[in-house]
Amino acid sequence: MKALYYDGEKAVYKEDVPVPERSEGESLIKILLADICSTDREILKGYRPHFRGIMGHEFVGEVVESEDQRLIGRKVVGELNKGCGRCIYCLTGREKHCLSREVIGMSRDGCFAEYMTLSTHLIHPIPDGLPIERAVFTEPLAAALEITKQVHIDPAGNAAVIGDGRLAYMIAQVLALTGVSLTVIGKHEDKLKLFEPFAKTALLSDYLEGDGFKSLTADQCFEYVAECSGNASGIQLALNIVRKMGTIILKSTYAGSSSLDMSIIPVNEITVVGSRCGPFEPALKLLKEEKVSFPDVELYELKDHEKAFASPAFKAGFRF
Amino acid sequence: MKALYYDGEKAVYKEDVPVPERSEGESLIKILLADICSTDREILKGYRPHFRGIMGHEFVGEVVESEDQRLIGRKVVGELNKGCGRCIYCLTGREKHCLSREVIGMSRDGCFAEYMTLSTHLIHPIPDGLPIERAVFTEPLAAALEITKQVHIDPAGNAAVIGDGRLAYMIAQVLALTGVSLTVIGKHEDKLKLFEPFAKTALLSDYLEGDGFKSLTADQCFEYVAECSGNASGIQLALNIVRKMGTIILKSTYAGSSSLDMSIIPVNEITVVGSRCGPFEPALKLLKEEKVSFPDVELYELKDHEKAFASPAFKAGFRF
Repeated sequence: MKALYYDGEKAVYKEDVPVPERSEGESLIKILLADICSTDREILKGYRPHFRGIMGHEFVGEVVESEDQRLIGRKVVGELNKGCGRCIYCLTGREKHCLSREVIGMSRDGCFAEYMTLSTHLIHPIPDGLPIERAVFTEPLAAALEITKQVHIDPAGNAAVIGDGRLAYMIAQVLALTGVSLTVIGKHEDKLKLFEPFAKTALLSDYLEGDGFKSLTADQCFEYVAECSGNASGIQLALNIVRKMGTIILKSTYAGSSSLDMSIIPVNEITVVGSRCGPFEPALKLLKEEKVSFPDVELYELKDHEKAFASPAFKAGFRF
Repeated sequence: MKALYYDGEKAVYKEDVPVPERSEGESLIKILLADICSTDREILKGYRPHFRGIMGHEFVGEVVESEDQRLIGRKVVGELNKGCGRCIYCLTGREKHCLSREVIGMSRDGCFAEYMTLSTHLIHPIPDGLPIERAVFTEPLAAALEITKQVHIDPAGNAAVIGDGRLAYMIAQVLALTGVSLTVIGKHEDKLKLFEPFAKTALLSDYLEGDGFKSLTADQCFEYVAECSGNASGIQLALNIVRKMGTIILKSTYAGSSSLDMSIIPVNEITVVGSRCGPFEPALKLLKEEKVSFPDVELYELKDHEKAFASPAFKAGFRF
């Protein structure tokens, strides 16, 4: 089969990869569509130095073999992380944090291929009538929904999203659904335009003064600040614009240390919530009901992976 | 009247200070007992450079003048922070964070004096039968109870307290009341002895290896970590011993920046909760019911303030 393989340095397109065989508890999935996530780009920059295998973790496929007969022929999406099933994390609903978990496209073969195997319990059938071009947003939308799973958003409050990229767009749409007063703070006027139907927008420069941050009144600050700029300085801005006893949600991951005056956290009784992968079922429901909308995905053949990875589109992906 | 005054550099004992006059909405309180808090020691080190006035904020007193006749003659404790009553913080239950608040012993005259005025709405009568020597622990115990106000502690989980000082002792007692499995991590074998009736104890060195932290299994880590060591390195230890999706409560305040690898917060979906002043009523209830116990306070005359501030006792205070 065709597959896009990470050899430890770069992505390699292959046509002679054997179709994987499913183990007990797994299903074999024919991939129909797969999207490139920023994590895939990070892998090409060395984020997973020990990984060798087929890349990709955002997909829609069709189950072709499974012990669960009801799944055969169903269009499905799937979760990334398979835990050991026995440790404290697996036994307390935190399989995604299992210390010996396998992650598709990061520690085991992923979905940039014609076929992939996946643990059957990680598979979610997509609702009838949901086009696969929208269903492929399930995984990143689920990551946005992790915020409302972790933090109660008071709809009478106000929230800021720091960042104007893809993740910010999904998070802003999820937050907008709560009814909260929403402001998106970004660097790019053109990208911010996209948020205008459901949020106020502001330029990062509106919050800067001299070498530091503008000082704000309590009213100008926010109860909730979701930091998804992908930039370490986003935390500093978040600490500057959050209200006392407010909540910062950290979505971006950046390597390396930042020098932070942590004393502001106890003094102002701020809560900082780290947030990552999220629940698939509500994501599928919101996609089906068209409560969220995303620009079209730009699709490429697997052999054109270099073009796909270089695409500036909202999302680029592969069709099979 | 006698009073202990901060002149911007040091504590000055005075005997000729006029008894304060109460304004509208205030009561006049005759101070019976007042304890020294570590914040008072910090003030002497320059923590409040612009403050000039009578020190102290932990007290038990008797109301001698008030618009609320029911309070006259009652023994009372009182909260520190008086807000403006009109801003978003005052109007949403966050008076203690009002940007133009007055704080006794820090921005207005405090309780190291024979008399003090205080806004009547900040006054809490102490329950009948609660000795004033125990009631004086209300304010610091309330600060410990702020943790269970902010964070739901699952009694089936496990918790660690980092620190073996006074604040750690109060926090550990409050956490122990939830039934949670509790470990106190400190530097001092003698201080840790005090925690043994209600907690497991461990030395900080048990968690160190070489230049860094020992790596722990998931089972050895904690769902809840309360950091109250008063030391910036406590945060690093907290991040090392907290479980994925666990909660760190930051109680200590330290000036200055620390260099922290913040990426661990989103990657491990950790929640960090800053925590400060807390609710007085449950503190009074637990003190009255003897559900928590503290060593005796060592009491001094106000003129012997230097001895009192130098006391190594669990708590030192002043009698009037």
